[in-house]
Amino acid sequence: MTISPLALPFPELPPIRGLRLAAGAAGIRYQGRNDVVLAELAPGTAVAGVFTRNRCPGAPVDWCQAALPGGEARALVVNAGNANVFTGRAGQEACRATAAAAARLLGCSDRRVFLASTGVIGEPFPHDRLIAALPSLAGMLSDHGWSDAACAIMTTDTFPKGATRVAWVGDREVRISGIAKGSGMIAPDMATMLCFVFTDARAPAGPLQAILQAGVERSFNCTTVDSDTSTSDTVLLFATGQAGNASADFGDFAARLNEVLHDLALQVVRDGEGAQKLVQIEVTRAVSDSSAKRVALSIANSPLVKTAVAGEDANWGRIVMAVGKAGEPADRDRLSVAIGGVWMARNGAVVPDYDEIPVVAHMKGREVAITVDLGLGDGRATVWTCDLTHQYIDINGSYRS
Amino acid sequence: MTISPLALPFPELPPIRGLRLAAGAAGIRYQGRNDVVLAELAPGTAVAGVFTRNRCPGAPVDWCQAALPGGEARALVVNAGNANVFTGRAGQEACRATAAAAARLLGCSDRRVFLASTGVIGEPFPHDRLIAALPSLAGMLSDHGWSDAACAIMTTDTFPKGATRVAWVGDREVRISGIAKGSGMIAPDMATMLCFVFTDARAPAGPLQAILQAGVERSFNCTTVDSDTSTSDTVLLFATGQAGNASADFGDFAARLNEVLHDLALQVVRDGEGAQKLVQIEVTRAVSDSSAKRVALSIANSPLVKTAVAGEDANWGRIVMAVGKAGEPADRDRLSVAIGGVWMARNGAVVPDYDEIPVVAHMKGREVAITVDLGLGDGRATVWTCDLTHQYIDINGSYRS
Repeated sequence: MTISPLALPFPELPPIRGLRLAAGAAGIRYQGRNDVVLAELAPGTAVAGVFTRNRCPGAPVDWCQAALPGGEARALVVNAGNANVFTGRAGQEACRATAAAAARLLGCSDRRVFLASTGVIGEPFPHDRLIAALPSLAGMLSDHGWSDAACAIMTTDTFPKGATRVAWVGDREVRISGIAKGSGMIAPDMATMLCFVFTDARAPAGPLQAILQAGVERSFNCTTVDSDTSTSDTVLLFATGQAGNASADFGDFAARLNEVLHDLALQVVRDGEGAQKLVQIEVTRAVSDSSAKRVALSIANSPLVKTAVAGEDANWGRIVMAVGKAGEPADRDRLSVAIGGVWMARNGAVVPDYDEIPVVAHMKGREVAITVDLGLGDGRATVWTCDLTHQYIDINGSYRS
Repeated sequence: MTISPLALPFPELPPIRGLRLAAGAAGIRYQGRNDVVLAELAPGTAVAGVFTRNRCPGAPVDWCQAALPGGEARALVVNAGNANVFTGRAGQEACRATAAAAARLLGCSDRRVFLASTGVIGEPFPHDRLIAALPSLAGMLSDHGWSDAACAIMTTDTFPKGATRVAWVGDREVRISGIAKGSGMIAPDMATMLCFVFTDARAPAGPLQAILQAGVERSFNCTTVDSDTSTSDTVLLFATGQAGNASADFGDFAARLNEVLHDLALQVVRDGEGAQKLVQIEVTRAVSDSSAKRVALSIANSPLVKTAVAGEDANWGRIVMAVGKAGEPADRDRLSVAIGGVWMARNGAVVPDYDEIPVVAHMKGREVAITVDLGLGDGRATVWTCDLTHQYIDINGSYRS
């Protein structure tokens, strides 16, 4: 597996007070690499979560959704290799047993343990191996485990993903850091498979949930690799409270959190299966923001647009097709399309003598910008995707073998 | 371009009374092959049509929709190579001029001429070349031009597509024959790019339109290649009336027409860009027929399901994912999945010790059958698609070059 040409280096992530991490090898599916992460969270850690809207979610998603109303977390257990999805009653039992084992090790109640699994779907989940790995992880917990943790949760990912920001809550500086994984089965609701963000801010679970939901809507839910919505998508935000802020003014916190989420979401697209190019699609002057987003996602999910980008073909005709198939208000004769900032079509027809040279040069780059002006109203949206290449077929035509 | 391994031989299509066909080379885009078809229809020919629901349709679609309420047709002009889509006022003018030229040649009014174009989008349409080719075509009209016509309208198609049936209307035997083209940008509303069906039955335009719409819903609108809805999709049905039937009992006629449409729709899927396998997806026990169809199309359009089929991987976990992402009522723990008639999952979990040998053998074949039982109600639907292969990327990453 070669590393995505769009990969970014893993950032330096300083410790978060109240969080310790460990990664290890449970041999769930992969051999010779880490595949399980244990995170220990200080007493009083608040938690918020957003999950896949797929109607057939995995057992760990059910587990987290049941645990979330408690508002408090003491541990997180994540594994790669088997998603524990469509595993029936045995899959639910696996969650219960894993949470109980972690709770015993860390001295908390089962319902304070959050779980996430990623990997193949519909195969029996070997939770005995996962549970057997936990004691040694509990003995290895450290506040410098970021990179190992980000690597251990990877499946078809080609690089580990992390992001960090500093925010102010009142007069206290707080830290927000996160890791994510995901490169296929990526579509809004949610976009990534797994993302875990930690902060030392003190924040009640209620406001935390509202801030997280708004941030996810503008980041992960504005990205797509292949339109396939995973059964395991999970974003969890843990606030250990160790910064001891008295203030509950979370304005700057929310802004910085959104940056972390946006950064991680784009890293997931940069690692989209087979991605050679990162594509930004901006739709302006739609009848509403939500209409603009649906049009933008229709373009982003069109196999014909994505293969044209892969072929470095500035095929704006396919973009028009994708606008039209979205089913949203659009007037062919008011529509304008730009690639790399050059308007190729205006008001429903090609711009005579537009300069093709900068467009061709732009298409050969690693980042492609498409703008569509619908000419109807004030709605706008920006989404991100990647191109559709031979490597996507290679990866997904032989994933299980 | 190698011929699809799923190709069928072009059938023997006998003449239709009241119809003459000619094909020729206008050099619109392709060199050294025919790219234009002229059909002459007897006075009194009734016409029905169903068109793309893409909001940015091509100029010929606009033209046909404006001509359709007249209910009568005397000519059809079709070209391949340029779709005359997103060509602004010049594109509308091209339609007007082409129709006028054909009308002059055949002695009818402009509005009795129907038009269809397929090929690249957003490039100026060279209607002068099309018009220049018409006089020689008018001199070559014959009642044996089926195969030439079916070949002339091809773009990325690898084989010509035709179908024919005999129907009874009262005591008269009538003939129904059609040709179609299409292999990419194929998704419901409509599914094919172009399909033309001719019959010598005598039928008023009103009932003809109702029969055609119902037939298209169950055939072309139950197929998908890549989820991309073309801007040019057109199905036209012409009834020359030369059979002279007095009866207006169109029950058998509708049944046989549906067979022709179904036959042609499946030929389009068999020629799906890069298709190596024809996939039938049957969804049963949904809450309604329309819900079943949405679930079936969600499976049919999933890149992960389609690449799994290409990789001959009976990955029912991805099928479950695609059921869940459809957003339709589904209960993970009542869901069952079969491939090639073997139930691999029942009531939300893998069937212990199911026999993998026939499933593996089935996946290696040219036709793959997927069945999903939702266990909820009486709704059912069947749709067809093809696998997603390297050839799709090859064809669409370099279509314009």
